[in-house]
Amino acid sequence: MSSSADAYASAGVNLDASDRAKLRMRDAVRATHGPQVLGGMGGFGGLFAIGALGMRDPVLVSSIDSVGTKLKIAFAMNRHDTIGADIVAHCVDDILVCGARPLFFLDYLGLGAMNEDQAVEVVRGVAEGCRDAGCALIGGETATLPDIYTPGEYDLAGCIVGVVERDRIITGEVIRPGDIVIGFPSAGLHTNGYSLARHIFEGDDLHAFVPELGRSLGDELLQPHLSYLRPVAPLLDAGLVTGMAHITGGGLTDNLPRVLPHDVAVDLDTTTWEILPIFHLMQRRGNIAWAEMQRVFNLGLGFLVCIRPADADTALHLASQFGARRVGIVRQRQGDEPQVRVLGLGVDA
Amino acid sequence: MSSSADAYASAGVNLDASDRAKLRMRDAVRATHGPQVLGGMGGFGGLFAIGALGMRDPVLVSSIDSVGTKLKIAFAMNRHDTIGADIVAHCVDDILVCGARPLFFLDYLGLGAMNEDQAVEVVRGVAEGCRDAGCALIGGETATLPDIYTPGEYDLAGCIVGVVERDRIITGEVIRPGDIVIGFPSAGLHTNGYSLARHIFEGDDLHAFVPELGRSLGDELLQPHLSYLRPVAPLLDAGLVTGMAHITGGGLTDNLPRVLPHDVAVDLDTTTWEILPIFHLMQRRGNIAWAEMQRVFNLGLGFLVCIRPADADTALHLASQFGARRVGIVRQRQGDEPQVRVLGLGVDA
Repeated sequence: MSSSADAYASAGVNLDASDRAKLRMRDAVRATHGPQVLGGMGGFGGLFAIGALGMRDPVLVSSIDSVGTKLKIAFAMNRHDTIGADIVAHCVDDILVCGARPLFFLDYLGLGAMNEDQAVEVVRGVAEGCRDAGCALIGGETATLPDIYTPGEYDLAGCIVGVVERDRIITGEVIRPGDIVIGFPSAGLHTNGYSLARHIFEGDDLHAFVPELGRSLGDELLQPHLSYLRPVAPLLDAGLVTGMAHITGGGLTDNLPRVLPHDVAVDLDTTTWEILPIFHLMQRRGNIAWAEMQRVFNLGLGFLVCIRPADADTALHLASQFGARRVGIVRQRQGDEPQVRVLGLGVDA
Repeated sequence: MSSSADAYASAGVNLDASDRAKLRMRDAVRATHGPQVLGGMGGFGGLFAIGALGMRDPVLVSSIDSVGTKLKIAFAMNRHDTIGADIVAHCVDDILVCGARPLFFLDYLGLGAMNEDQAVEVVRGVAEGCRDAGCALIGGETATLPDIYTPGEYDLAGCIVGVVERDRIITGEVIRPGDIVIGFPSAGLHTNGYSLARHIFEGDDLHAFVPELGRSLGDELLQPHLSYLRPVAPLLDAGLVTGMAHITGGGLTDNLPRVLPHDVAVDLDTTTWEILPIFHLMQRRGNIAWAEMQRVFNLGLGFLVCIRPADADTALHLASQFGARRVGIVRQRQGDEPQVRVLGLGVDA
């Protein structure tokens, strides 16, 4: 192997550091493996025994995504231990919208240079996110591509596969006027709107403490994406959910319409939840219209769940420990008006 | 939407071109969808009804990978219609090793700038690869990350999920001395060894015709990765396979040991297949030892299948139309000798 490693090394690929990194990731990865995972790392493929779950009519739900330019904040802060949990939580929430629970995850890490510590931090973060979501990390690829990525930088993509019984798929088509909308708080921007955020804060010192935020700007912008699996699962188990939306690209206004029937609209009342300080700061600093803020950012709500009015108290009781509150109501749509109105947002500067 | 699009555009993200690209990809993507795919693109997750397959004890087999620096050849040639099929075939072959047939695929395309034509070419290539493999393209993410990727460049990762009945999983543990090894021809480097290849050909004109190759160097290096699903499926259906290896990173010598029992070794006889001209050219130009060539490149064999000697004729008959031939034999291993010997390779220059 050594002569081959030498030839590769001269072409910019350091096999030894890759092997060492793999070894250091292994325990964290294995800790995510339950009895459904057959074999270990190192095979050509990861094996997951879905037959053992004993489901009646399973439907697999899958999603692939990346963290986007939130990465640039991680590079600038030289902090790589949260970005892995970001991508896992993002994917978990994306399939949760259909009612699916995660089964397994695979990550792709493209690196400009094999920095062993950096790669290990990122993948351990992925593994921790997986463990938190009860999801097996059964595959991954770490590729050193010195001619594609800048040394010290990387891109991280993740693919999740979850499952739902066919007759428990949540589509949102049963949402009707009168349903109430329960909102779960976000922890910040999550993985969304970073191109605009970085534009707004261009040239700012990420390390400087910002009293309004109670932390540095960099720490604020690295706040991890929350997974809503734990708070939402009891609502699903109780059969209370008529529809859900994960607030990602498209912000507060453009995600709910992806699941709303065309003849209903939702009014969200901003007096019912806290628009986090980071959003106020960005609006002011960037002089961004609130009408635009609501189309780009989650404004403090990371996940929305629609519930029949008769189930509202039960649902809020189940979810209150996670900060859930009633944030809106479903009503008849008038003509082709926008399907989401955000009421009580600050007057534009 | 337009004011939001404007703010995003000023931050380097062009929403309109992304939307147009999505629209142009849609037909190619939908053409990969069979009755198991529920709903269309645009949801939060892609849905695949595995229950409808009526399997007894299904095991999901999954793999994620990227094309690696083969991309740099595509950039230099400004040809983006083959790279998608590359990543699909690579993933199909990776899970085929376990005996799994592909169910669905998701792609991640990270771009330096939204070049609509480029993105459409890449994703259509993915869709064509999927259609060829009978695999549904149920998800994908195209992310414009101007601060991570150089404008005009991109990275492409793909994740595949396939399935195999638990009692039909191929592990290689039943391989024993006397088994014969059937080899399937590769089309070139496939997706492997490009860092070294680019090092060898540094400064060469990729567009110049090379008589020895019968085409330009660029065209040679872009030859698509072959999928071995079609030729290998009949061997699996007939229950003839004792073990398989996809010849990827690690070349001819280091992939077969991933599935070989520790007490057997394989002799491959280079007089039985054609070492493609590109490998001779690289060996000569780079003055690379053959002992090293065999650890980096596939040398003309893309996929190996082990078969009981009594089944050899049947297997070769089934697979001969795909160029399969007997290329080696399994024997008792002596001590801790290397598990693969490549016999008759040219004497090192």
